[in-house]
Amino acid sequence: RLVGELRSALAEKTLRGQRVLVTAGPTWEAIDPARGLSNHASGRQGFALAQACAEAGAEVLLVTGPTHEHTPPGVLRQDVISAEEMLAACLRALDPPVDIFIANAAVADHRPSHYSAEKLGKTEIPNPLPLRLNPDIVATVHQDPRRPRWIVAFAAATQDHLAMASAKARRKGADVIVANDITRNDMGMGAADNACSILQGERVLHIPRCSKIDLARHLLRHLSALFSRPGTESEDLHE
Amino acid sequence: RLVGELRSALAEKTLRGQRVLVTAGPTWEAIDPARGLSNHASGRQGFALAQACAEAGAEVLLVTGPTHEHTPPGVLRQDVISAEEMLAACLRALDPPVDIFIANAAVADHRPSHYSAEKLGKTEIPNPLPLRLNPDIVATVHQDPRRPRWIVAFAAATQDHLAMASAKARRKGADVIVANDITRNDMGMGAADNACSILQGERVLHIPRCSKIDLARHLLRHLSALFSRPGTESEDLHE
Repeated sequence: RLVGELRSALAEKTLRGQRVLVTAGPTWEAIDPARGLSNHASGRQGFALAQACAEAGAEVLLVTGPTHEHTPPGVLRQDVISAEEMLAACLRALDPPVDIFIANAAVADHRPSHYSAEKLGKTEIPNPLPLRLNPDIVATVHQDPRRPRWIVAFAAATQDHLAMASAKARRKGADVIVANDITRNDMGMGAADNACSILQGERVLHIPRCSKIDLARHLLRHLSALFSRPGTESEDLHE
Repeated sequence: RLVGELRSALAEKTLRGQRVLVTAGPTWEAIDPARGLSNHASGRQGFALAQACAEAGAEVLLVTGPTHEHTPPGVLRQDVISAEEMLAACLRALDPPVDIFIANAAVADHRPSHYSAEKLGKTEIPNPLPLRLNPDIVATVHQDPRRPRWIVAFAAATQDHLAMASAKARRKGADVIVANDITRNDMGMGAADNACSILQGERVLHIPRCSKIDLARHLLRHLSALFSRPGTESEDLHE
């Protein structure tokens, strides 16, 4: 704890005066009061990113799905359950303006088409289960008139992950994509360690395996450098 | 901690020499490496039951789905993910013979019909999603030649819960049913407190709201009394 505070005090306050919105965790898409669709995200990487941003002097708002993580010091946290709730919370967070949006949450692509307020009996569950596409939070924030100056999106993939990640970037309007390989059990989703590749335009930078908080600090250092470089305004990427 | 150890030492060892199998937590039914179907169970009530059984002198095997709970002292724990894995672990646990099976896990009724070892793209997820019925763990253990002398099953329901619970008892072959009302946010699934009704034959006994460990201890005391009463052999209920 002391080491943490010292490290925080010693950290260069590269994000001082910046307002950062971070999303974390999975979303839970309810079928009924007991059942739902979800994913394996623990929230750990998102919480580590929020912590690293706070250490770097930013004002941090963390919007998180259901998780067992503890709120890092200096971070304002809002809990949500579903993708729709997460989107609503993110849009509300855009006043006052957000400088950097770090979309780390593993948002469910779909929700069940119908929610039953009563717990369904075994035979009452629709089979096959009709799904509805959830709103894309990154794309919606990108299209908002209050779009943050920088949008950093995360992509998880089991194969060919860099190609998928850059396709995802183009589609959604993110300025920077951080690509995770989730094929390995000992890294990424639900694990303690992580490794990633940062993709910005033609540039690719690999951060090798380390703890999620170290990865968050490395990542933030790279992003701060990128954001302060004069030639790399977000508008360049989206004319 | 000291209080806990004292309480444990002072507890009547009503289950000494008994082998108890407890299931706990939700199950996770994977769609792909990231996504799945699950439910809100925290595992807390099942872990409390395992703890209360150990306090009462039983040899306890705890088979649990994904949870953040800590293993109670003196309890042998096996982690599983899916309903099929949980069933396999329970059947393996029947040698040497189990005296009491406490089926507290919130086992998913369905799993996705197909599992994809590669993470599916957003458009690759089958919609509607085909489901397959999971095996019923209580019913399967009941039909096994090595059937434990006592089977205690839990039923969660949002309405008319006693009627649903006793129907469930008859269907599955449990000797005792513990019925939870999950309509209330402050009790039952995912909450710290719980309340329940114990149904055995025509008898109904209500345990009012208390912490999950107190509820587990109350429940165990009632069950021990019931199990040692000469007129209530499990065979009476299943000719």
